[in-house]
Amino acid sequence: MSIVVVGSVAYDSVKTPFGEVEKALGGSATHFSASASFFAKLHLIGVVGEDFEMKDIAFLKERGVDCDGIKVEKGKTFHWKGQYGFDLNTAQTLETHLNVFLNFSPEIPAHLQETPILFLGNIHPALQLKVLDQVKNPKLTVLDTMNFWISSELETLKKVISRVKMVIINEGEARELTREAALLTAARKIQSWGPEIVVIKRGEYGALLFFKDHVFSAPGLPLETVKDPTGAGDSFAGGVVGYLAMKNNYDLPTFKQSLIVGSTMASFNVEDFSCKRLQALTKKEISDRIRLFKELSHFEEVKI
Amino acid sequence: MSIVVVGSVAYDSVKTPFGEVEKALGGSATHFSASASFFAKLHLIGVVGEDFEMKDIAFLKERGVDCDGIKVEKGKTFHWKGQYGFDLNTAQTLETHLNVFLNFSPEIPAHLQETPILFLGNIHPALQLKVLDQVKNPKLTVLDTMNFWISSELETLKKVISRVKMVIINEGEARELTREAALLTAARKIQSWGPEIVVIKRGEYGALLFFKDHVFSAPGLPLETVKDPTGAGDSFAGGVVGYLAMKNNYDLPTFKQSLIVGSTMASFNVEDFSCKRLQALTKKEISDRIRLFKELSHFEEVKI
Repeated sequence: MSIVVVGSVAYDSVKTPFGEVEKALGGSATHFSASASFFAKLHLIGVVGEDFEMKDIAFLKERGVDCDGIKVEKGKTFHWKGQYGFDLNTAQTLETHLNVFLNFSPEIPAHLQETPILFLGNIHPALQLKVLDQVKNPKLTVLDTMNFWISSELETLKKVISRVKMVIINEGEARELTREAALLTAARKIQSWGPEIVVIKRGEYGALLFFKDHVFSAPGLPLETVKDPTGAGDSFAGGVVGYLAMKNNYDLPTFKQSLIVGSTMASFNVEDFSCKRLQALTKKEISDRIRLFKELSHFEEVKI
Repeated sequence: MSIVVVGSVAYDSVKTPFGEVEKALGGSATHFSASASFFAKLHLIGVVGEDFEMKDIAFLKERGVDCDGIKVEKGKTFHWKGQYGFDLNTAQTLETHLNVFLNFSPEIPAHLQETPILFLGNIHPALQLKVLDQVKNPKLTVLDTMNFWISSELETLKKVISRVKMVIINEGEARELTREAALLTAARKIQSWGPEIVVIKRGEYGALLFFKDHVFSAPGLPLETVKDPTGAGDSFAGGVVGYLAMKNNYDLPTFKQSLIVGSTMASFNVEDFSCKRLQALTKKEISDRIRLFKELSHFEEVKI
C-alpha cells in the first residue's frame, strides 16, 4: 500500500549538548519519509523555497519516494532554530521562519486522491481539513499535531480529529487537548471524538497504543548515544504508518508490531543530527534492532 | 524464602489534587511490607515512637509479617509532610521530623542473621553498612536509596553499593549518582561498582532491569485513578523482592517477572492514599492485574 504524506520540508538549525548543525535537512514530512521509505511507497506533498537544494533529498528519491508533490515557491524554505539542554525531552524554539510555508496550500493531484493511506503531518488544521476533503475512500487516515495548534486552533483541530481514523500525539499534548491528567482517560476522550486508534508518544519512554478498548505499551530502547531528538516523533510515525502500509493489515497484532517498528526508527533518528542516521541506515540494521525489543518487552507467564 | 527488611515506619501527611490525609501510615519498610507480604515471609526491623498505634499495622501481622523487630522508643514516630501537584511524579517536602528515627540503629537479632534475603530500605548509608556487617551468607541483598544520601553521603553510599547484589533506584537519582545522562550508561557504571543487577524506577513509565548485560523494560499500567504516589517505589520493590523470595530463583526470566509484579503492586499503591489500597487488596486482584501486563507488553514477531 502507498502513502500520501503532507507536511513540512525544512531546514533546521539545532544545538544540543552533543553538538550542533546549521540549516540541516528537517521538517515533519522529511523525517516521516526518511523512516517510512524503508517499508512503503510514499508520495510527499510539501513546499520549499528557491534556496532548497534538491540533492538534500536525493536519498529519499533513491528509496523510491515520489517527490513530485514538493512545490518550489518564490522565497526561502521553512527554517526552524532550536536548542535542547541535557534534558533532551524538551526543545526550546529560538526562531521560526515559516517563509514559503506560510502560504502552503496542499493540493493532492487527481491520480493520488485514491491513495489508501494518508499521513497528515503537523500543519495548520484548516489545511489538514482541506487535504481530507480531497482524498477518496482512504483505508487509513493518520493525524499528527502539536501544542501550537491545540492552543490556537482548538475547534478546527477537533474537526480534523473527528474525521481521521488514527491520532498520533505527545503525552503532554494529549493532556492539554483533553484537559485530562490520566493518559488512559485522555485517550478514551480522543477516541470518543471519532478516531478508533490513539497513539501517545512519550519520548525516551516509548509510546502507548489505544486500539478500540485495548492498550499496548511499546518501550523506548535505552541508548548510549542520543545526540538530537529533533524529528524523533515523525520518524516514529514513519515507522508505524510505513509498517502498516507494508502489511496492509489493520488488526490489533499488526498495530502493536507497528509501534515496535516506530520505536525502533525513533531510536535511530536520535543517534545523530538531522536525518543523518536515517539516511545512512540499512534494512539489516533495522531488523537487528527490532529483535532487541523482544528481549526488552517479553517475559514468561507470572504465577503467584 | 524469607526477607529481612530494614527501613522507616512513619506517619505521613500528604496532600494531592485528589485529596489529603493527616498522619496516615507510611514509611519505606511499611509500604515494602504491605506489598511483599503477599508473596513471602517478612521480618521488619524499624523504630517507632510512643505515639505509634500498633493497630495501624495489624493488617501486616495478619499477613504473617514478623513485627517483633519494631522497637518502640521514647518520643514521636518519624513524620513526613509533603504535597504533589497535578504532575504526580515529583513530591514537594513540606516538613520532615525524624523524631525517634534520628537515633535508629538497626540490630538484626541473632536468629535472623542468616535470613536469605535482605532489603535495605532508604536509611542512612552508614546504617545500611552496619546491617550488612550483621548478616551472614545472604542469597540476595537489595539496596534502595534516595537523592538526599547521594548529595550528602556519596562515599559511604558507594561503599554500600559495592557490597550489595542489587540496587533499586529512581532514574533521576541514577543520573545524579553516576553523572551520566543516558540510563544505559548510568546502569553500566553502577554495575561496574559491584551489583550484578540494577533496577531503575521511572514512575508512571514503569522500570528498567539491567541484569548482567541484559536489559528489560517493564511498563507502567495506564490507570484511570491515581490519588497518591507516596510509597509507590517501595511497593514496587516489595513486589520485586517478594516475588523473587517466593520463587527462590534468581535467573533472568524470574527477574523479568519480578519487575512485572513490582509494577503491578505499584499500580495498586497509587490508587489510594497511604497503604489503604494495599491493605484492602486480595491475591485474586493481583493475579487479575498481572494478566493485563501480557497484553500490554507482548507482540507477535515483527518481520520487515
